[in-house]
Amino acid sequence: MIIQLENTISPQNLDLLKREITNVKYSVNQVSTQMGNYLVCIGKDEFDIRSIGHLSGVKDIHRVNEIVKLVSRKWKTERTQIDLGDGVKVGDKNFAIMAGPCSIEGEEQIRSTVKQLVKSGVRIMRGGVYKPRSSPYSFRGMGMDGLKLFSQLCKAEGIKIITEVMQVSQVEEMHDYVDIFQVGSRNSQNFNLLDALGGIDKPVLIKRGISGSIDELLYSAEYIFSGGNEKLMLCERGIRTYERAYRNTLDLNAVPILKEKSHLPVIVDPSHGIGLRQHMEPMALAATVAGADGLLLEIHEQPEIAFSDGQQTLNYREFEQLLEKIKIIKEVL
Amino acid sequence: MIIQLENTISPQNLDLLKREITNVKYSVNQVSTQMGNYLVCIGKDEFDIRSIGHLSGVKDIHRVNEIVKLVSRKWKTERTQIDLGDGVKVGDKNFAIMAGPCSIEGEEQIRSTVKQLVKSGVRIMRGGVYKPRSSPYSFRGMGMDGLKLFSQLCKAEGIKIITEVMQVSQVEEMHDYVDIFQVGSRNSQNFNLLDALGGIDKPVLIKRGISGSIDELLYSAEYIFSGGNEKLMLCERGIRTYERAYRNTLDLNAVPILKEKSHLPVIVDPSHGIGLRQHMEPMALAATVAGADGLLLEIHEQPEIAFSDGQQTLNYREFEQLLEKIKIIKEVL
Amino acid sequence: MIIQLENTISPQNLDLLKREITNVKYSVNQVSTQMGNYLVCIGKDEFDIRSIGHLSGVKDIHRVNEIVKLVSRKWKTERTQIDLGDGVKVGDKNFAIMAGPCSIEGEEQIRSTVKQLVKSGVRIMRGGVYKPRSSPYSFRGMGMDGLKLFSQLCKAEGIKIITEVMQVSQVEEMHDYVDIFQVGSRNSQNFNLLDALGGIDKPVLIKRGISGSIDELLYSAEYIFSGGNEKLMLCERGIRTYERAYRNTLDLNAVPILKEKSHLPVIVDPSHGIGLRQHMEPMALAATVAGADGLLLEIHEQPEIAFSDGQQTLNYREFEQLLEKIKIIKEVL
Amino acid sequence: MIIQLENTISPQNLDLLKREITNVKYSVNQVSTQMGNYLVCIGKDEFDIRSIGHLSGVKDIHRVNEIVKLVSRKWKTERTQIDLGDGVKVGDKNFAIMAGPCSIEGEEQIRSTVKQLVKSGVRIMRGGVYKPRSSPYSFRGMGMDGLKLFSQLCKAEGIKIITEVMQVSQVEEMHDYVDIFQVGSRNSQNFNLLDALGGIDKPVLIKRGISGSIDELLYSAEYIFSGGNEKLMLCERGIRTYERAYRNTLDLNAVPILKEKSHLPVIVDPSHGIGLRQHMEPMALAATVAGADGLLLEIHEQPEIAFSDGQQTLNYREFEQLLEKIKIIKEVL
Repeated sequence: MIIQLENTISPQNLDLLKREITNVKYSVNQVSTQMGNYLVCIGKDEFDIRSIGHLSGVKDIHRVNEIVKLVSRKWKTERTQIDLGDGVKVGDKNFAIMAGPCSIEGEEQIRSTVKQLVKSGVRIMRGGVYKPRSSPYSFRGMGMDGLKLFSQLCKAEGIKIITEVMQVSQVEEMHDYVDIFQVGSRNSQNFNLLDALGGIDKPVLIKRGISGSIDELLYSAEYIFSGGNEKLMLCERGIRTYERAYRNTLDLNAVPILKEKSHLPVIVDPSHGIGLRQHMEPMALAATVAGADGLLLEIHEQPEIAFSDGQQTLNYREFEQLLEKIKIIKEVL
Repeated sequence: MIIQLENTISPQNLDLLKREITNVKYSVNQVSTQMGNYLVCIGKDEFDIRSIGHLSGVKDIHRVNEIVKLVSRKWKTERTQIDLGDGVKVGDKNFAIMAGPCSIEGEEQIRSTVKQLVKSGVRIMRGGVYKPRSSPYSFRGMGMDGLKLFSQLCKAEGIKIITEVMQVSQVEEMHDYVDIFQVGSRNSQNFNLLDALGGIDKPVLIKRGISGSIDELLYSAEYIFSGGNEKLMLCERGIRTYERAYRNTLDLNAVPILKEKSHLPVIVDPSHGIGLRQHMEPMALAATVAGADGLLLEIHEQPEIAFSDGQQTLNYREFEQLLEKIKIIKEVL
Repeated sequence: MIIQLENTISPQNLDLLKREITNVKYSVNQVSTQMGNYLVCIGKDEFDIRSIGHLSGVKDIHRVNEIVKLVSRKWKTERTQIDLGDGVKVGDKNFAIMAGPCSIEGEEQIRSTVKQLVKSGVRIMRGGVYKPRSSPYSFRGMGMDGLKLFSQLCKAEGIKIITEVMQVSQVEEMHDYVDIFQVGSRNSQNFNLLDALGGIDKPVLIKRGISGSIDELLYSAEYIFSGGNEKLMLCERGIRTYERAYRNTLDLNAVPILKEKSHLPVIVDPSHGIGLRQHMEPMALAATVAGADGLLLEIHEQPEIAFSDGQQTLNYREFEQLLEKIKIIKEVL
Repeated sequence: MIIQLENTISPQNLDLLKREITNVKYSVNQVSTQMGNYLVCIGKDEFDIRSIGHLSGVKDIHRVNEIVKLVSRKWKTERTQIDLGDGVKVGDKNFAIMAGPCSIEGEEQIRSTVKQLVKSGVRIMRGGVYKPRSSPYSFRGMGMDGLKLFSQLCKAEGIKIITEVMQVSQVEEMHDYVDIFQVGSRNSQNFNLLDALGGIDKPVLIKRGISGSIDELLYSAEYIFSGGNEKLMLCERGIRTYERAYRNTLDLNAVPILKEKSHLPVIVDPSHGIGLRQHMEPMALAATVAGADGLLLEIHEQPEIAFSDGQQTLNYREFEQLLEKIKIIKEVL
């Protein structure tokens, strides 16, 4: 059960309300986000919600019998839209392209990408400065120096930044240079990191775990929301299956399911999803018509010499072609 | 290596050719289909193909280093198109809708479906008369009586039939009443059935196994082609994964991969794929833009009372809506 | 619900009984096997079973709320034992080793294996004469000629034969030369083959599908039992997962689960399970202590030159070592 | 390539050595652990290792062509043994039982468990104080208060503690109260946590990821080792598959494979592995004969009322029975 509170609710009325709920043997979790104040109440027995609906300070009450509460569509049927400022929005009719290299490699590369994005009318750039790598001996990203450069060059052109955060201590460090924090697949159930991201007022994109279930992805979002941050996006990026013909198995079934279950925007990453450059276009178009609210795309001026993931990265010409097709499809649907 | 033979090749020249190939330690598999005569030659060592290219009766020679040979695009870059007669074609720009109930239930149901298909301009009806069921106590289909009725009512309206064949003895029995034989997921590696279907001149649609790999699907098609029947379609219908939010995980990655590797048409079955009626439309549209050559759809006048699979079956209104959207998308792409 | 019938039940009493069951809206499936006569009754409503328990010809009545009926332990708590004759038994304290080559290759190979089995006191020899192969161009077995030779040489030494049957027409053809029919993974849900094996009086070992669930394996056994043959064994042989370090993932969890759910013997095939010769011993021992009723092992005089599966085949010395360790473990447990 | 260094190597000789390696285009990673000093050198070209083998300060040089280096058996064929002090050792013939509740619940529960362990001669107690939970609303552990109590009561009886660490900041906080840090499945690729654990001198047990591959588990161990801590244990705890009959699929194939590839001890957790109390004994025994160096077991005085995981927890009587059987098996093998 979710109780939406009036912002003006008095401490006395809040206490009264909490007492009433505890009386019917529900636990009470108070949540305050950028957008609202909620009580998430968890219990088993049925009771007459009218008994609390009339209390002062209660805006609305919703039964939510799903496993997740705040991220569920059961209490919020309108779609969440995330405003990044400067007219850049994600979700609820704002289809968002987020494109850029796998890894930030240096000034020249950032400039080249920014220029291409400006040319294509794309407002969000992706690029990793902290890279999760299976092997400790691989390149692990440019770190904060890379991020500061990345931020400076993007701000100059009104481009927003999405980049991966890997641990709690980075949240504060990276905060001022980032527009969207990305939680990667391997950290999808790093609950301490999710807790930390619940405490800030910056949008977060959460990737589904490497073999994460739909429910687990929603739970991870619930962690952040219940921590106080409801500017969230869910991201499908391919799951691990027995099939060896592609890097991961991009699971587009997740798109309509997530949009049925949650009010949050759903972004698809076909680059990691199928992991094959020559097949990114069909998968990106398929994600678009399946109902995705945006795409996370790896592009590079010369994918052949990229520091990482070159085999799943589009060059600029391929990227423009894809954007053109997406535009046509979005117009007719 | 595939050697395409002239139809006019003399027995002497054929013998000579086979001897040359055996001399370089390749095995020779002679294949005669409805459309051509081939030698599939398998060996390891490199040799100079010019030494046989000049022999009489040799039309063309292709190195095919893929695991599969005849179904590979390495020797046949043009797309295979399958002609069902009466102007009904599948593949190579002929996007085919195959729709109908999971199970054939009786005359009234067939008539209703046929009427709807005619109204919608759809020329191929699906419907099972032999049903593979996990439990021996479930309804297992109307059998030959159902098929004869199905065939009679469809023929009267120029509708072609696709239906599942489950064992060797049914191939002959069903032959005259069927336009496309469907090999189901559970029989995807029933090699004796594949052998038997190689011996007839009727199109075959092969579904990927429940956890079948891309390679295994191609190998299964190779069985039929090498047996003498090259009128083949491949079908993606969802794979088995850990995810429990849907019946199967429709794997649209398979579409561009199969079209890259093979010249055969690729059909997608979103009904079994996601297994949820309310999400069939986005998955069907996604399959279409991903490059599928057709869709296999479960429809029923009243899905709620269907003998089987009602939860993944569209009603007629939903079906017409979907067709309308597919039409729009096909036009702009 | 399973009703065990007296063999002496009169047709009139049987009719009466069926009518009573139909009256409470249960379907009735009459099953006659080598060992008993049963009515398998499927329905939803609860009713008072005493109303039929007193009828003449009823031996016993059991509620079986599991998805499967006849193969469930809910009605038969004693373990099924299968008697192959000549003192060779499988199940219920008779731990059975079934060993031999992947493929029957010729007289010399059979003689060598038989000699080794006699020496080791092993009474059942495995060996394929019909081989399911992914590629149509691979060696597909010696067929009936191989089987006849196999049978003749084994009979002479009192060795029983287990070999794979791949299609309905082979059941009759192979019948007199086989002691245990093996249904392979790819045919685990070949329902027509299961039906055919229900009609004979020869033991059948059913392998779990390549990604078959526990429930599906039990259902497949139910097919054969309900067809009239209750001499059945279940076989775990490794499932398909994302892991690439081994051929399949031998799933020993299946052993205690199957023994909890079913009264049938459970055999484990570590050769296909892990697919690596050097690790067969630990997996075979693990299967033994996990509660398996027997092992299916690939052995060969010279695994390096075997026609197939050499990399997962023990040589005779390794085989003897393994038998010695199994013996020790069986003694102390 | 791994170069073992003499502890007495002079800075000059170390520089010289590094320069030689860089000259042949290998990268150099210097690693100093509790037990040794190494250079891990990664490159592609073959070169004559004799050219550096004679240099002063070089103890030994090993080619290691595996994906992992320091955790590989290619350079260290003897088994790693971990000494926890007070005569408690893990690995290399010291089979270790680690038993206790899923969650630390309070003083009485700790006392009861410790008493049982002392009675059974078990020297390591498990128990979570920080619990990773899918839902943010679930009980998340007693935290540091619980750990201090846990530590105090165990120390008094000479029992060592293994408990899960979830984030970097906890490493220091927990350090003095823990004997073995456990990295849970969800953090198996939390690379920052692995880095942090590389910087301390406390043993670490790393669980395989929820769908982690063998290679990924080894890579995670390589992170910690290359960070400077070689007191490591690997843990198989069940993987995620399509099968729904058990919580996870305990993958015992991992045991012989990990012991082939790595010199580190391999521990098995059958509680999470199969997740069913009634089947823990066969799986624990199977793990033992498959070659595990120890078991991680959930036990509780009254599993029925445990805060978490009661359904996969043994009571004391079942635990003693299991220990007895393990003892018998270890004696005969």
